[in-house]
Amino acid sequence: MDWKSEIEAARGRLRGRVRETPVLRATGLWEGGAVELKLEQMQHTGSFKARGAMNTVLSRDVPAAGLVAASGGNHGAAVAWAAREAGYPARIFVPEMAGPAKIALIRALGADLVVVPGAYANALEAAQQHEAETGAMQIHAYDAEATVAGQGTCMAEWEAQGLQADTVLIAVGGGGLVAGALAWLGAARRVVAVEPRTCAALHAARAAGRPVDVEVSGLAANALGARRAGEIAFDLARRHDVTPVLVEDADIAAAQARLWRELRQLVEPAGAAALAALTSGAYRPEPGERVAVLVCGGNIAPDPLG
Amino acid sequence: MDWKSEIEAARGRLRGRVRETPVLRATGLWEGGAVELKLEQMQHTGSFKARGAMNTVLSRDVPAAGLVAASGGNHGAAVAWAAREAGYPARIFVPEMAGPAKIALIRALGADLVVVPGAYANALEAAQQHEAETGAMQIHAYDAEATVAGQGTCMAEWEAQGLQADTVLIAVGGGGLVAGALAWLGAARRVVAVEPRTCAALHAARAAGRPVDVEVSGLAANALGARRAGEIAFDLARRHDVTPVLVEDADIAAAQARLWRELRQLVEPAGAAALAALTSGAYRPEPGERVAVLVCGGNIAPDPLG
Repeated sequence: MDWKSEIEAARGRLRGRVRETPVLRATGLWEGGAVELKLEQMQHTGSFKARGAMNTVLSRDVPAAGLVAASGGNHGAAVAWAAREAGYPARIFVPEMAGPAKIALIRALGADLVVVPGAYANALEAAQQHEAETGAMQIHAYDAEATVAGQGTCMAEWEAQGLQADTVLIAVGGGGLVAGALAWLGAARRVVAVEPRTCAALHAARAAGRPVDVEVSGLAANALGARRAGEIAFDLARRHDVTPVLVEDADIAAAQARLWRELRQLVEPAGAAALAALTSGAYRPEPGERVAVLVCGGNIAPDPLG
Repeated sequence: MDWKSEIEAARGRLRGRVRETPVLRATGLWEGGAVELKLEQMQHTGSFKARGAMNTVLSRDVPAAGLVAASGGNHGAAVAWAAREAGYPARIFVPEMAGPAKIALIRALGADLVVVPGAYANALEAAQQHEAETGAMQIHAYDAEATVAGQGTCMAEWEAQGLQADTVLIAVGGGGLVAGALAWLGAARRVVAVEPRTCAALHAARAAGRPVDVEVSGLAANALGARRAGEIAFDLARRHDVTPVLVEDADIAAAQARLWRELRQLVEPAGAAALAALTSGAYRPEPGERVAVLVCGGNIAPDPLG
């Protein structure tokens, strides 16, 4: 797999389709001094997921039946958006437990939205049935090459914007974003993966030597709560010897507050998880180590203007 | 007055003290296509006011009695911050009507805060008395050269970041920010000043041929509600033939919602007023005219994480 070429090709496809999200260097966010940030929550649909979804739509043959996804969250919104932008129908199966804010977001994007009673597994089952019946194309949220290559464009873009950090902190759910970063960076910079202690699929995978099912809960579960890390992410994490650092929900909430009070950036818990590794001391840089934090999602609930 | 030199000097003073705030180009905010944005609400204390306050503190002899300001809003927070950063005492007289969110912001910055019953005029009177009694230095919120030169660094910075617009839209309260922009740009780009219909001090000044007192009210009054435009702003506006376009409160609220829904930027009404001129059609660019919007403040009330 020539990831560099895949990600370069994805960058070309996505040019003019996804936003070049802003970066800045800021003090005041943690005691160690300055940190570089990329504000990827300003991406279309409020998270990096738009990159992987759009890259998939543009690089594969989409059937007449269009797209299908099971997601009550950022991936569902991203698939709905990519389908609308590219002119395909999309049906999104949303677990009832996703909550009204994310359901409203997906509905506003024009998708054919089906709220499924119960949890994610029920929505996934309904989506698979729809796929089997209609031939619609399912886009995996994190464990597919086109998804990972799309997410990798985020780090490629950041380097083109002049990233100067030795170390980049990235929150992990199923691992699509961190896989994209590792695929792009290789050994050029240190990648610190960050998981909430209550959504630690990649941490568990590294401990077990293979992706395994985990229980998920807590503040960031509706964005980072993958039951099992992706094979692609696991493979790249093992290759680059990345084991996630773990943060507590209270640290995530404190980092969320810090981003709002210092920078007026109101983000969802998942979007503050990477910063939480710095503010809590879960990750302690060496003296002189230059650190950067990827802010990955902003779809906070309840909607502050809802 | 050699404004270019003053603003260049201010840039030198402020380097490393204020944030270089991020810029981006985004579609989806209005029907006319893309717009360039500068997210100055990410500045220290949540507005551009930090620039003028810090430039004043660094370019003048601050007396032992320190600083004093009368403000229930962004200027008060900026003076409190500049004093803390430079190691001076500050007393901020805040009108009771400023509301708990902004009072809490100023208190958190460590200033000696005095809540004065009544409105702004009462706080101003108390501040002037304090100035007379102690020799503390008052920093004018908008009508002083060091303040305007500091605010002018925002536009100078934006040009250094690669601004490509023909036209820049800027919200106006007392006129410090728009004066700084006009002072820096001269005739190089078109500046569109934007005022809420209910806080239209510069519009009234242009109609009367001199700054005159106006009544202020409405959504953005606690940031844009100057009773009278500054002489510096009036003079520059007249010289460059700038008459503010007016926007309604409903347009401001709609632009606020647009910034949140499209970009996950939660800003105060004043911060959305310039965009409102585009989204409402109060300002209609010519075909091909490239437009930019300065997002100037983010101190929304109530505090979403309060």
